[in-house]
Formats: sequence, structure tokens, C-alpha cells
Amino acid sequence: MEVTARAPGKIILSGEHAVVHGSTSVAASINRYTYVTFRLPPSSECDGLLILHLKDMGLKFSWPIDRIKEAVANFGSHTPLGPKSCPKECVKCLASLVEEQQIPEANIAIASGIIFFLWLYTCIHGYRSATVTVSSELPLGSGLGSSAAFCISLSGALLAQSSSISLDPRKNDWLAFDESELDLVNKWAFEGEKIIHGKPSGIDNTVSTYGHMIKFRSGDLTRLKSSMPLKMMITNTRVGRNTKALVAGVSERIMRHPDAMTSVFSAVDSISNELVMIIQSTATDEISLTEKEEKLEELIEMNQGLLQCMGVSHASIETVLQTTLKYKLSSKLTGAGGGGCVLTLLPTLLSSTVIDKVMAELKSCGFECFTAGIGGNGVEICFGS
Amino acid sequence: MEVTARAPGKIILSGEHAVVHGSTSVAASINRYTYVTFRLPPSSECDGLLILHLKDMGLKFSWPIDRIKEAVANFGSHTPLGPKSCPKECVKCLASLVEEQQIPEANIAIASGIIFFLWLYTCIHGYRSATVTVSSELPLGSGLGSSAAFCISLSGALLAQSSSISLDPRKNDWLAFDESELDLVNKWAFEGEKIIHGKPSGIDNTVSTYGHMIKFRSGDLTRLKSSMPLKMMITNTRVGRNTKALVAGVSERIMRHPDAMTSVFSAVDSISNELVMIIQSTATDEISLTEKEEKLEELIEMNQGLLQCMGVSHASIETVLQTTLKYKLSSKLTGAGGGGCVLTLLPTLLSSTVIDKVMAELKSCGFECFTAGIGGNGVEICFGS
Repeated sequence: MEVTARAPGKIILSGEHAVVHGSTSVAASINRYTYVTFRLPPSSECDGLLILHLKDMGLKFSWPIDRIKEAVANFGSHTPLGPKSCPKECVKCLASLVEEQQIPEANIAIASGIIFFLWLYTCIHGYRSATVTVSSELPLGSGLGSSAAFCISLSGALLAQSSSISLDPRKNDWLAFDESELDLVNKWAFEGEKIIHGKPSGIDNTVSTYGHMIKFRSGDLTRLKSSMPLKMMITNTRVGRNTKALVAGVSERIMRHPDAMTSVFSAVDSISNELVMIIQSTATDEISLTEKEEKLEELIEMNQGLLQCMGVSHASIETVLQTTLKYKLSSKLTGAGGGGCVLTLLPTLLSSTVIDKVMAELKSCGFECFTAGIGGNGVEICFGS
Repeated sequence: MEVTARAPGKIILSGEHAVVHGSTSVAASINRYTYVTFRLPPSSECDGLLILHLKDMGLKFSWPIDRIKEAVANFGSHTPLGPKSCPKECVKCLASLVEEQQIPEANIAIASGIIFFLWLYTCIHGYRSATVTVSSELPLGSGLGSSAAFCISLSGALLAQSSSISLDPRKNDWLAFDESELDLVNKWAFEGEKIIHGKPSGIDNTVSTYGHMIKFRSGDLTRLKSSMPLKMMITNTRVGRNTKALVAGVSERIMRHPDAMTSVFSAVDSISNELVMIIQSTATDEISLTEKEEKLEELIEMNQGLLQCMGVSHASIETVLQTTLKYKLSSKLTGAGGGGCVLTLLPTLLSSTVIDKVMAELKSCGFECFTAGIGGNGVEICFGS
């Protein structure tokens, strides 16, 4: 018996950085997923073992169940009803189990993700043998919420076969959880985000859980339903960023120019609120889809100007902007900036020839580039054979 | 006997576009000049003629004095004490005199400038033969105040040999007018700006007259003295702009996004005021020149982001920005945007090797590029042999 969960990545449509200083921000799911497949009872080869297969990286880890039990047993019994935070001491014990496995380039995010996997697995399924396989369409560490999508799909897959969740396993299609189940998946995954990120905002896991769009301001998350189909091109500059340094840089700029920056954040807040109004206005309203798209394009351009004003753009981002501008497409950085990913709105009536051309040109600059539907469903489950 | 006046061009250091909507803007003179040489009594070859020689364009016009008298005589007597606006009917009469001369590409600004020349000349010097020679270091129509520099240097040269002005002609050096003389030069030149531009803001002629820097807000001009030497690179993208369309575009954006744009203008206002504080703070203050330059660079970057937010940047401007960014130099468009000129601050400690490199790279893109001292003297006079 096998179950697969898929959880989407996210983009920030507007308000990154400014949100730290009280402005409204809008995030949305993208139809690029992380998949976690959970197989139980285990196949014969993993008797007494817990196996984790990170397919994209070609990595396969296995731990004797007994050793995991040793590491975890002191920290309480297993219960899927949690969520339970992993105590610091337990993180240490699990970390030594993870360290034994050779993780290339000592990737801390991956190691932390595996610690969460071991914790979550034992909390929900105790000390049973199993194989868990992970694959993802999301580039790692580029601001598209890959770690949240991992935590959510993992929680979704593990909880789907627990006593806490009662989905009908006969259907062979992507199934949605009900609201209370989603809440549980989200809460468990947030424990993972805490292990990986320290102090996560909760935005990434919320978008990955519930899908669609969310508005957030001063810690309040509001789920939005959009009636507007949105398609974007996402360009990964592949330039690694130091998010903490970028956030600190903005704060320093506020110290130096408090009046100007306050106005800039206020402008971003207005832009986010306008964006929410546009995506929530229904098709029966007077404004046509093309008009709505044009308004969004203008807001995207304006938001990017304000991000440049905050000092979080980068030469690679500017190259993407200039390339898409040649095709009269509007773009903005998404997430922390300083590299990372750039969004480009693809209007409904834009010909695929143009999309192909601009993507080819961006790829020739060395960027990774794909299109994505915006604002679709959150985590879903599919029962296999 | 001969006199030459030189009048500087100008740049907008901050606040273009936003100034139309109530924000503070700062303009400064640059040490690039338009020169007007006035020769009187005429050399033998121009007996009974008024000759205008536009040296850079290789154009030489001459009019029989009698024909000018015919056109102008009905509109009052000559008096340098004016200034007198050129009546519409008189503009028409002079325009027909100008049309007889073949002006290449029917350049309206040049034709209007010549009409002003004929008007100003007869007002100040009546119907005497003379030769007036114009040459300029300022590119035409690229936002560097070339028309104001023409009007100011013309007024300066013609007034310097009139009864209104009493400079000591013995000195063979650049001489300054006194304040009341400057006021007269400025007022006469403003009449020229009206003929050329219709409704000039008065900024260009004020900077060209008094030099240094001025702050302007809601029609109020305040002259500033800067104690800070400033050097900039000015890159002319050679992309022609439609200033009216750009200004209208910003106004339309305000209609669509009033809240966001109000905040953007407020941010620009703060930036202009900060800039004024920095350039006016004296060397005895705690802050070093390098620190001041770094602050200015940050303000330049921020202002450019806000201009992008207003939608007045252009692919050519972005190319300049990206090129200078490679050398860690901060740039912004100056003036209307949509092409035109870009400013780049050149810090005092920047090596000339770097300046040469970035200029060579910009020139290889097809741009015109030069360095300029910022905030120097206004119109000055030199008596020749």
C-alpha cells in the first residue's frame, strides 16, 4: 500500500521586505510540487529499516529502526495528533544519526529536513519499517518555498495513513484533505519549518497547505480566493542569496533614511491592497481580464521599482527585467532578492511563440526558466497500488 | 570690440516628475557651457547686416538690418531695461524672417531660439550691424538645459555691452555679473524660454544664471550654496523623448494608483530634502566627504527606483545603470526619462582608470559620455580684443 502527497511551492506576488516593516504582502501557490511517497508495509528489502530516498539528488539513506528508537524514545511517545515540537536535545540526537549519512556539501537545510523527517515519522508511525521517497519540481533555496513544500508533502503523506485522517483510499486521483485535516498537516509541517529555518513566518507552509493566495500583514494571514487565472514565467537566476543580510540591509537603509523608507513601505502596502482587489474582483465586474492583467503588470513594475529603492535587486535580476522588457512583459523579483527568482506575468492572450522566444533568450543567459499556473490547490493526496 | 558670455547647462539631481506633483526637486549647474560671442562694431563684411553663426551646426544666417527693422518696428522701441515679452504678432513677423533661412530638419527649438535672438538683439541694440557667434558643449534636447544656456549666454553677451551693465572691460578673465545684473539677464532669457518652450518652469534659466544648486517646490525656487565638490559622469543615451507624453503618463498612473503614487512622491520629497541637507553640511561637520558621497549614492539609487516605479525609465537607461553597477557606481536618469541623460556619481577617491573603463564601455554601447563638475558658477563674461 502506497500513498503520495504533493504540496505546491509559493511565490510572493507583492510586498516582500516591506512586510517585515508592517506592509501588506500577497503570496500564492504555484503548480510546481514536491512529491512524497510513503510505502507501508515495507518491501522485503527494508526489513527493520527506515529508508529515505531523495530522488532528485540521487541520495538514499537508511537507518535501522532500533537506532532511531534509541535516539527518540526518551522524548515521549508517538502521536499523530500533535503537533509536537522536537525538543532541542532530540534534535541533537537525530542530528548525529543524520551526520552518519554522507550529505554532499554539508547542506544544512537538507540535514535539518531529514531531522524533521525522522521526528515526524516516529511521532506518527512509531518504529515501523517504511520507505519514503521525495522528489521535487522546485529549485532548492531560491525562494519558491521548497522546504515548506517538503514539510507539507511529508506531513500529508505520513498523516494520510495515520488514524488522524480518514480519506477514502479507493479513489485513484488527487484528493483534497478536509479543513481540519489541512490544519493538522500545516501545524505538523510548521514544526519542520522551525527546525529548518529557526523562526519561519508561516507564510510558505500556509500557502503550500491551503493553496490559492494569502494576504499577510503584521503576522495576520488571510486566505484569499482568486477568480482570476494567472500564469507566470518564473526565472531562477541561480544566484544564491543571503536572505538575512538582505533583510538587515533594508533595516539599515531605514535607519539612514527613515522618512523616505516609510513612504516606500506605504506605497508597497497600497500596491498589495490593490493587487488583492484586482485578483478578487469577479469576471462579472465591468473590467475585462485583459484590463485586469494590465493593471497587475503596472503594479508588478511599480513594486519592482520600490524593491530597487530598498536596495535588494541584483545585476542578474536586472538582466532578466531587461530581457522581458524587450518583449513588453512586466517582471519583478520575488522573495528576498539579491538573486533568486524573478516573476514575469504572462497575459492570457500572449502567444506561445513569444513565450518560447523569451524563455530561450533567458536560458541562453544561463537562467533556469519555467511557466507556472498561480493560485491553484494546496496539498493533495493520491493513493497508489 | 568683442565680448563672450558662457552659461552652464543643468542637471536634475533629484525629484524630476515628482516636482510636478508637489515634491521637492534639486537642480544643479554643470561645467559644460554654451558660449555666445558678440562683436560690435561689426567687421567690414557685415555692413548693414545682422549675422548669426551657429558654429556647432555649421550654420550661418544673415539678415539685412532694414528687414529686421520692418518686422519689429511696430512693436515698440528698444530698451535693454525690459524685459519685454515678444508680442505674438511680432513672433509671427520674425518667424517669417527665420523661415527664409534654411534650417535643417525644420528644428522648431532652433527656429524659436533664433526668433528670440532677433527680438532680444533689437530690444537691446536696436538696428546696428553685428556678428553673434554661438557654440555649445551641451547636447541639444537631452534635458541638460541647452536652450536655457543659449538664452542666458545670449542675454549675458548682449547686455554686457549695453548701458544696463557696467562691467570693467579691462580684465581678460571670466567675470561675474552682480546680483541685479544677473536678475536682468535671467528675466530677459526667460522671455526666450517662453518663446522656445511655451510654459517653462524657470528652473533651467535660474540654474544657468546663478549657477550652484537650486531647490524648487510648488513654484518656489531657493538658491543653495554647496560646500561639497561633486563630480558626475553624464551619459547621453541619444534616445529622444517626448517629455509631454512622459509627464502625462505619470499623471495617468496617479489616476489609476492614487495611494501608491502619493507615497512615492512623498518618498521622493524626503530624498530631495535629505540631499539638500547633505550637500549643505559643511566639511567641519563630523561626516567625512566619502561618507557624504556614500549617502548621495544611496539616495541616487533610491530615486532611480522610484522613477522606475513612476514608469519613466527606458531600456537604454537600464543599460547604462547595469553598466555602471558593474563598477559599483550609482546612477539615475535625469530630467524627463524615457531616454535622455543618466547621471553617475563619481566619488572623489575613484581612480581615473575606472572612470576611463566605464566610459569606454558606455561609448561602445553607442552612448555619448562625459564627466562634469557639479554646482559651479552661473553665467560669466569675458571681454576679448
